[in-house]
Amino acid sequence: MKKFLFTPGPVPVPEEVLSEMSKPIIHHRTEEFESLFAEIREGLRYIFGTKEEVFVLASSGTGAMDAAVANTLSRGDKVLVINGGKFGERWGKICSAYGLNVKEIKVEWGEAVDPDQVKDALENDTSIRAVLIQASETSTGVKHPTTEVAEITRERDDVIIIVDGITAVGVFPLPFDDSGIDVLVGGSQKAFMLPPGLAFVSMSEKAWRFNQESNLPKFYFDLKSYLKSAKNNTTPWTPAITLVIGLALVLRNYREQGLEKIYNRHANLALATREAMNAIGLEPYAKNSPSPALTAVVAPPDIGAGKIISGLRDKFGMTVAGGQDQAKGKIFRISHIGFIDKADTIAVISAVESILKDLGYSFDFGSGLRTGAEILAME
Amino acid sequence: MKKFLFTPGPVPVPEEVLSEMSKPIIHHRTEEFESLFAEIREGLRYIFGTKEEVFVLASSGTGAMDAAVANTLSRGDKVLVINGGKFGERWGKICSAYGLNVKEIKVEWGEAVDPDQVKDALENDTSIRAVLIQASETSTGVKHPTTEVAEITRERDDVIIIVDGITAVGVFPLPFDDSGIDVLVGGSQKAFMLPPGLAFVSMSEKAWRFNQESNLPKFYFDLKSYLKSAKNNTTPWTPAITLVIGLALVLRNYREQGLEKIYNRHANLALATREAMNAIGLEPYAKNSPSPALTAVVAPPDIGAGKIISGLRDKFGMTVAGGQDQAKGKIFRISHIGFIDKADTIAVISAVESILKDLGYSFDFGSGLRTGAEILAME
Repeated sequence: MKKFLFTPGPVPVPEEVLSEMSKPIIHHRTEEFESLFAEIREGLRYIFGTKEEVFVLASSGTGAMDAAVANTLSRGDKVLVINGGKFGERWGKICSAYGLNVKEIKVEWGEAVDPDQVKDALENDTSIRAVLIQASETSTGVKHPTTEVAEITRERDDVIIIVDGITAVGVFPLPFDDSGIDVLVGGSQKAFMLPPGLAFVSMSEKAWRFNQESNLPKFYFDLKSYLKSAKNNTTPWTPAITLVIGLALVLRNYREQGLEKIYNRHANLALATREAMNAIGLEPYAKNSPSPALTAVVAPPDIGAGKIISGLRDKFGMTVAGGQDQAKGKIFRISHIGFIDKADTIAVISAVESILKDLGYSFDFGSGLRTGAEILAME
Repeated sequence: MKKFLFTPGPVPVPEEVLSEMSKPIIHHRTEEFESLFAEIREGLRYIFGTKEEVFVLASSGTGAMDAAVANTLSRGDKVLVINGGKFGERWGKICSAYGLNVKEIKVEWGEAVDPDQVKDALENDTSIRAVLIQASETSTGVKHPTTEVAEITRERDDVIIIVDGITAVGVFPLPFDDSGIDVLVGGSQKAFMLPPGLAFVSMSEKAWRFNQESNLPKFYFDLKSYLKSAKNNTTPWTPAITLVIGLALVLRNYREQGLEKIYNRHANLALATREAMNAIGLEPYAKNSPSPALTAVVAPPDIGAGKIISGLRDKFGMTVAGGQDQAKGKIFRISHIGFIDKADTIAVISAVESILKDLGYSFDFGSGLRTGAEILAME
């Protein structure tokens, strides 16, 4: 059976990228590699919307989240974590591991944080040094109002905003310099259409000021080493060469397409999926602010998500993600990132309808498909 | 021109492994991946010679070195670093970054440490909590007497030995359990014949005792998370899936061949190269204890290493490594690890002779080749 990956990381990788990465290995201390790396630096700046360096780490996204904290903060610092899902929770765990004083804004799963709450929290406690947030909370499919929150922290010299953009960078507009974001993290196995194993991180001038005072220990993730090496078009430690080579190709394609087209693709696939699910009576898990990276769908309670997920796998070769923790068994998540297009999206909508019919769910068969196809045809 | 990689990482990757890694991406939270990971756990235990878990990190080798320190030691701990090259120096830098009290045994570049010196140092200062060493110091081509040093630390309940085995694990015998090594680090782009991007680390029972007291902050590299996940045949954070898939194939091949055969291959290629260089009047940089991972060769002083390296590159498409820091311009390094065989080794010996002849070096042309071929024929 043909296999389809609709998970929000790992994502399908274009065949030409897989093929590029399977060429004989080149050495990373060569002109050939350095010229590729120079191109990557420019390409990443374009995607991140920044004049700053974007560092390329050999790690998963969590490694770059770790680096974001370790490179800016100091033991005992008070931080405000926006916790509205599994990854918000992870910010808290990372900060606690580093001995920071973690204050949380708990956001109900499926909801986006209210920027006023952040504003109030910062006004009520002027000792807070950083706000940590997910631009797109992958566990719930929610897009937090990151740029609005960044407008608040931008007014304050003594507060930075650290953004997990792992399922946001390259997915929807999140311009680093224009938004006043201080630290932004991305990952290869998301909008970058690559296998997992690379993470990206960029730091604002303000973040570099924090870095000077930061006393948290770091070596492998010490971004000062990466900054120094980047100027020589390399990394301080051996890079994940094959993935970097794939990255160069993806970035070249992205610059040719232009960001607007890429953002539109994600937005349309997400809209089509959401409206299709709506047409067959299924609610999105994200109540007000759905992320264009993925659509989390609430399964009919009497059926549950487990049977839908296994049905898609067994009958259609399609892997979608389930819910985690409190959302386990309740939702299934369909991704719109990676090498996924209109045809794939129509196919997964159709498969969901087919499985729901098998499972005895009562709905107007074909109505989701029709709705989805109408939206996708408008592009 | 056909390209040859004779660098001690990255190394040539077998075509079948490149091809395996270019298959469509699978998801890591699936039975398919978990069954692969179970096989990998067994395979790594076999190569490491241990009953303990060997953790698979998405990072370069330096990341696992960082993890080795962060997971066992505590702020202010006194450590003894064997510094006889670029990577010994790196142990010192990592320990300093974590606020440890670093005491060094400086070993002249090209020489191996004397185990008695370690013994004396530990006897003279009983507050030392760890010895950090390279099993194979890649910058000098020296093999340190790691198992002898481990015999010393093994006698002490309050001292662990942390071994950088990045160009040693899978290259020559270094049995973890039998040697009494406490922490052992490996990397994918070495004997494992893979692209860079994966690192391996294993911890003894004694190291886990140290871990319980360790107060150094860690999150991405927290090995307790890896231990918990390993039991479920997975990693705590998204693994570098393509590299893990390649690893499974390499480990399968290795188990079929058996360790002895693999060790013999490295030893023979190294011996042939060393003796060939000797025959044409070139000294190994490693004075007494050459590593089978690579042969560092002292260039004729009036010619220098630079012209030999660029000649090999331009005339033969061969990349060998140069010297670093104090050895820069003085040596060139030929690797014996990765997908490299007798034919490649004869070819590089021949190329070195040819370039030396071009450069006006006076020697018995063909004598290196003859010597090398005789040794390689004995296998």
